[in-house]
Amino acid sequence: MSNTGPETATEPDRLEEILAAAQGAARAFGRMRPHARAAALRAAADGLDAAGDELVPIARRESHLPEPRLRGELARTTFQLRLFADTVEDGGFLRAAIDTPDAEWPPGPRPDLRRMMAALGPVAVFGAGNFPFAFSVAGGDTASALAAGCPVVVKAHPGHPELSERTAGIVAAAVTGAGAPEGAFALVRGEQAGRAAVQDPRITAGAFTGSLAGGRALADIAAARPEPIPFYAEMESLNPVFVTADAARRRRDDVIDGYVGSFTLGVGQFCTKPGILFAPAGAGFEEAVAERVRGLAAAPLLNDRVAEGFDRGVERLSGHPAVHTAVAGTGAAGERSPSLFTTTADDLLRHGEDLLTECFGPASLLVAYDGEHQLAEAARALKGQLTATVQGTDADAGADAGPVRELLDELADRAGRVLWNGWPTGVAVSHAMQHGGPYPATSAPLHTSVGTAAIDRFLRPVTYQSLPDALLPEALQDANPLGVPRSRDGAPAVRDA
Amino acid sequence: MSNTGPETATEPDRLEEILAAAQGAARAFGRMRPHARAAALRAAADGLDAAGDELVPIARRESHLPEPRLRGELARTTFQLRLFADTVEDGGFLRAAIDTPDAEWPPGPRPDLRRMMAALGPVAVFGAGNFPFAFSVAGGDTASALAAGCPVVVKAHPGHPELSERTAGIVAAAVTGAGAPEGAFALVRGEQAGRAAVQDPRITAGAFTGSLAGGRALADIAAARPEPIPFYAEMESLNPVFVTADAARRRRDDVIDGYVGSFTLGVGQFCTKPGILFAPAGAGFEEAVAERVRGLAAAPLLNDRVAEGFDRGVERLSGHPAVHTAVAGTGAAGERSPSLFTTTADDLLRHGEDLLTECFGPASLLVAYDGEHQLAEAARALKGQLTATVQGTDADAGADAGPVRELLDELADRAGRVLWNGWPTGVAVSHAMQHGGPYPATSAPLHTSVGTAAIDRFLRPVTYQSLPDALLPEALQDANPLGVPRSRDGAPAVRDA
Repeated sequence: MSNTGPETATEPDRLEEILAAAQGAARAFGRMRPHARAAALRAAADGLDAAGDELVPIARRESHLPEPRLRGELARTTFQLRLFADTVEDGGFLRAAIDTPDAEWPPGPRPDLRRMMAALGPVAVFGAGNFPFAFSVAGGDTASALAAGCPVVVKAHPGHPELSERTAGIVAAAVTGAGAPEGAFALVRGEQAGRAAVQDPRITAGAFTGSLAGGRALADIAAARPEPIPFYAEMESLNPVFVTADAARRRRDDVIDGYVGSFTLGVGQFCTKPGILFAPAGAGFEEAVAERVRGLAAAPLLNDRVAEGFDRGVERLSGHPAVHTAVAGTGAAGERSPSLFTTTADDLLRHGEDLLTECFGPASLLVAYDGEHQLAEAARALKGQLTATVQGTDADAGADAGPVRELLDELADRAGRVLWNGWPTGVAVSHAMQHGGPYPATSAPLHTSVGTAAIDRFLRPVTYQSLPDALLPEALQDANPLGVPRSRDGAPAVRDA
Repeated sequence: MSNTGPETATEPDRLEEILAAAQGAARAFGRMRPHARAAALRAAADGLDAAGDELVPIARRESHLPEPRLRGELARTTFQLRLFADTVEDGGFLRAAIDTPDAEWPPGPRPDLRRMMAALGPVAVFGAGNFPFAFSVAGGDTASALAAGCPVVVKAHPGHPELSERTAGIVAAAVTGAGAPEGAFALVRGEQAGRAAVQDPRITAGAFTGSLAGGRALADIAAARPEPIPFYAEMESLNPVFVTADAARRRRDDVIDGYVGSFTLGVGQFCTKPGILFAPAGAGFEEAVAERVRGLAAAPLLNDRVAEGFDRGVERLSGHPAVHTAVAGTGAAGERSPSLFTTTADDLLRHGEDLLTECFGPASLLVAYDGEHQLAEAARALKGQLTATVQGTDADAGADAGPVRELLDELADRAGRVLWNGWPTGVAVSHAMQHGGPYPATSAPLHTSVGTAAIDRFLRPVTYQSLPDALLPEALQDANPLGVPRSRDGAPAVRDA
């Protein structure tokens, strides 16, 4: 557990070279034809897949995560790169839109207007510690920024320095080998280099997954620049789960299995870990969950910093006068078994704020409520969330779904993803996924950091007015040589020609 | 010219009522069915049209703008409200997307995922002074926020207090008369009330059109909140125009007419006014433009504050050692005739920064360049712009379009809208319009404040995972009862059922 010690920081001179190269690459990379940029993403995926037997042991040593999980995470990472390659080739992300000239358009004649998305420019990506592949050097932020045509400068997470270095070497070689300009991808090390990148005028956006304190500090730097830039930080979420009375009656064991499995998955080190669950008082949840949790062994946390943060969170909960410690986790240095805390909805609503904060690691708070009217009330006390889940039954969803509807309305107002009878710790990488939410879940509620829509964060619209066809970008030329979907005069997009 | 004096500021108690009402209205307004919300927007448009004979004289007295311009601007404003009503009914803005369950999806089974845009919540809108209808109380920010389903609290511009009050009365009565909840629309007065609104936790986004200093100050407040919110400020732009050598030869008179007409339109008080034009040295532009400008009469500026700001800008330019005053504008109190300044591209590239700042009002800087290689070089010195224009010819656009292509690439990297042989001061309200750009043109380069895409600023994505059909929002239910366009498994959207 010594891997959070000092790493070899990137020196200012080297950082300057990297940023200059990123800026130098921006034009050519942003204007690479879709098939060429897609090929670069696929080359990165192929390179990582081929190096799996080398990378996974490094990841295992640096993160203490088990091999099957890391193999699965690597597969997710390379799938993600290939899905973004498909996204680039599809061209829908360009949101090409053409307004044909209209002399009768009110209040004055409308010229030929053609709008599409263009790459923003170099992006600073901050790798996360808890997913050393999927949210780190070659993770979703990198994949979506590269797909958008933005050069990427990754700040390595100190939790897995060797893996970061090796991953970066493979990605950089693959993308330049596939024709991307030198400078389209680079890695920097050290907090100072990361901060300096966010402050640098050549960086046009930032992306981050990690703690609220870390994300907010970087978002503040981005906002305070002489020329502020968008900063997409995915930070803190409790991921509340609400069990209806009927579900507690009919699906109790199933719900308890799912809950314990979800909040202890990956040693509780998921940003979508259910940190709080509401179950009806007197339905036997406390005893049953506690019994299940007591049987679980200790497992190593990612690193000492995570272990220290977890212990502080456990202390905050266990020391709270309204909270009962049902199961006190134990563990040798760097290892922890899961902890379970309990309270009542009445107490929670009275002591709200300090109990509604994430505790990153294997712990959750089980809340006993008295009557379903308390569910919407509790939901209203929540800040922004990545996810919110209802465990219900067919009867709950039926004609008389009043309390459940009200609860779902409150949850949709606060969370990026609302689940029914599922568990939030699985996050599919797909088109309709939303991994984001109002603050403090993220710093940018309009966006997602998982799924193909994540590409939108790194694109800005440009409209061309009355340009000769030959001078337009290909995606907007009359003949539609790239075959991208285009919206004409406001209609849904089609692949016209 | 006394209309920038102290206005009756909204007291804190009244502001509290207004914000509480906006929050109280958010749920019902955000979930109003599309036809109902569209009807509210159309009712506002009808109300304003019906009151034209009352409103235009007030606007005339308060803004000193001529009646035909104000009639046209009112028509633009009500057209805009109706276009957003159509946008709401169309439903494309919801970006409904459905991922069907897929057991084979890598790296793990994909559940049923349904994503759509939801209203962000109450929005603070800051009315602009230069468009008392189209960018003020019932302008594009208000129309797009209401269309998104967000309650709007407008901070009145002090330049037209009576018009603001009267417009707000009509809009509020119309939207609540059409079934929107009380609190969906309100007006506040005074800088303190505006700042307090941006700081209030119930406000979820802000929109502003005006000066860089004013917009940046509010954006900074929004970013520094305990829970930061997006703030969309449209601020400062030079709107450069580049005349190719061939256009200077073949289209000189046409270009000069257009230039002078554009930079003096509305007494130069447009955010898209061409503040700088590059023409080849020795092509006779300076003398011809100066002659045209000398013949123009003085006209009243919007108010004393604008006149003072304009005089400071003129002083900055006329006092610059590298700048020649070709025509010094004159005018009685509050009136100004146009001014023309000249310099060379060499001097501009040496003294860059201080000459590349907006001077709001009837003035422009004419730059003589030596060879078209200087055009891209000059473009590289520019900050973010709302617009950038090339005046060229068919020959420029032909096979050998090297210098023009390079110039267009630089402009597309810096501006939201790139024009060919047009003038930037006309901004069509339509689907493919982009009125925005990198900082300092705006605080949010991913967005537009004009055109139907402006609605995107006030929406955030929510994904529903495995919800029973009856509990889904209508736009995501299997039967598609609202008939909105929906994307399935990443394909272009169609109106399925």
